[in-house]
Amino acid sequence: MIRVGIAGYGNLGKGTEAAVFNAPDMELKAVFTRREPGTLQIKTPGVPVISFAQIIEYKDEIDVIINCGGSAADLPITTPMLAEYFNVVDSFDRHAKIPEHFAKTDECAKRGQRLAVIAAGWDPGLFSVARLTMQAVLPGGAEHTFWGRGISQGHSDAIRRIEGVEDARQYTVPNAEALQKARSGELIAAATREKHRRECYVAAKEGADKDKIAEQIKTMPDYFADYNTDVTFVSAEQLRKEHSGLPHGGSVIHTGFTGFGGSTKHTMEYTLRLASNPEFTGSVLTAYAGAAFRLAQSGKTGCCTPFDIAPALLAGQTAEALRLKFL
Amino acid sequence: MIRVGIAGYGNLGKGTEAAVFNAPDMELKAVFTRREPGTLQIKTPGVPVISFAQIIEYKDEIDVIINCGGSAADLPITTPMLAEYFNVVDSFDRHAKIPEHFAKTDECAKRGQRLAVIAAGWDPGLFSVARLTMQAVLPGGAEHTFWGRGISQGHSDAIRRIEGVEDARQYTVPNAEALQKARSGELIAAATREKHRRECYVAAKEGADKDKIAEQIKTMPDYFADYNTDVTFVSAEQLRKEHSGLPHGGSVIHTGFTGFGGSTKHTMEYTLRLASNPEFTGSVLTAYAGAAFRLAQSGKTGCCTPFDIAPALLAGQTAEALRLKFL
Repeated sequence: MIRVGIAGYGNLGKGTEAAVFNAPDMELKAVFTRREPGTLQIKTPGVPVISFAQIIEYKDEIDVIINCGGSAADLPITTPMLAEYFNVVDSFDRHAKIPEHFAKTDECAKRGQRLAVIAAGWDPGLFSVARLTMQAVLPGGAEHTFWGRGISQGHSDAIRRIEGVEDARQYTVPNAEALQKARSGELIAAATREKHRRECYVAAKEGADKDKIAEQIKTMPDYFADYNTDVTFVSAEQLRKEHSGLPHGGSVIHTGFTGFGGSTKHTMEYTLRLASNPEFTGSVLTAYAGAAFRLAQSGKTGCCTPFDIAPALLAGQTAEALRLKFL
Repeated sequence: MIRVGIAGYGNLGKGTEAAVFNAPDMELKAVFTRREPGTLQIKTPGVPVISFAQIIEYKDEIDVIINCGGSAADLPITTPMLAEYFNVVDSFDRHAKIPEHFAKTDECAKRGQRLAVIAAGWDPGLFSVARLTMQAVLPGGAEHTFWGRGISQGHSDAIRRIEGVEDARQYTVPNAEALQKARSGELIAAATREKHRRECYVAAKEGADKDKIAEQIKTMPDYFADYNTDVTFVSAEQLRKEHSGLPHGGSVIHTGFTGFGGSTKHTMEYTLRLASNPEFTGSVLTAYAGAAFRLAQSGKTGCCTPFDIAPALLAGQTAEALRLKFL
């Protein structure tokens, strides 16, 4: 049994807890939290909740830490710190900051002779592997990533910060026509804003100016101004009832050409339809946690990404069994 | 530049030649054939066609051989033989024979200190990696592979062997309803024959008994008897005109559940739509040939499958460049 620790107990930590619970070869040893441990009620029977401040004390009792903190403020600090004492995986998703996060984590993991896997969610993660593989098989060509229909936490938060907004949810939705064009290999170049629209469900505070709120959303730079954005006002109750889930998903679609004239067209597609983003991301992290443990056992240290993980490492079975079952 | 040799110059060898030609980091050194070399006209300017009998003489001039022979009679002999002298990749696809093919190739490659990758096409190959990864991320659940719409060479050959048949093409076609059910996560268990039908286009010889031919096709054990099979008679000219391509493709669809109740449903799908099966398979082999070369350079020997190949190995770029571009 691989002894797992979970750091952070928000939505992602909870989803990861379930994935570890369902993994046949893993055992949850502890959940670590920055909050007062006594205030947390976790779901796995008999597993302690420990203050994050004490995590290093557990370095010999845990084979791999799944770091479920946020990418903005938490992971850049805690993943390198943990990598000196534990094998660790995270789902760091700030693309521009990956080189820095990689370098720091690599240095710490090597110093501590541990193995880290960063960016091991679905995007970055599974989608990244799909993009790389498709490009390797059909070099050149046109590649598109579509996200959604799914809740964007960052965009939902941005709406909530507007004056007069009580609560809000934002769905990123692929443009159906662009998706269809990509699938048939006819979408050559398109910006992200041309491929997606944004649906906002907003509960306004009593007496708030809804027109002004809608205007502020639609003109918000970076987040909404470049997109087709729909704003729908609903009651707080409706928002809770109809938009409380965290669905997500998307597609990587690559069209490439073969033959001496480069005229034979092929389309490769990888699609995810996820009822719960945090539960699925937790499941991906858990699979990579197994891989990190197995790769560490083989003597490798330092920082990796999903690009460095051979598929066989994701499964806790012998190479022979894998060949029989899945090849 | 990776120096590549191609063994075999049928449809797959030709598709591979184009893929090597289009690969920015590869150079085709020679094509090896069992036929009289002088009778072959290949497409890459300046590349010699050599008798397969002389292939071992080229062991120091070629970094990796892409073995494009047939799985039935050729690859089981030539891949192990070549693996003693060359890094080699093949697209061996006889599932039941993989353990034997792996063991033989592994022994020879280790003896010669070379690296081999077998079963490196799209199924087995890319689809196998998809199946393994999906199962690792969402253990349990329901997994389905659909093939087609595409030409099955083996089934087309089986029809051609019937008395009175001049020529024939057989398409394997996924059952649209089963595919839809799998996509929505509602197809729990289904046999291959329930998920596919077979479309046969047959040119009969003059005076042949068409009813008898159709009957013989539809009742042929293993090949057609268990399937919904449609037989359409066409002229030899029509067959050439409308059915001369070798399209194929398919989908791996995995539905799995997460959460403590195991009630949150997710669907993962990997789909290929291929205008030319041999050109695409040649492209996959070429990507794995690059990986075989790079893995051999790192000192690894013996037999591998796509399960043992980290995604980064498929691309001839630095780890840093890959992280920037694809992560």
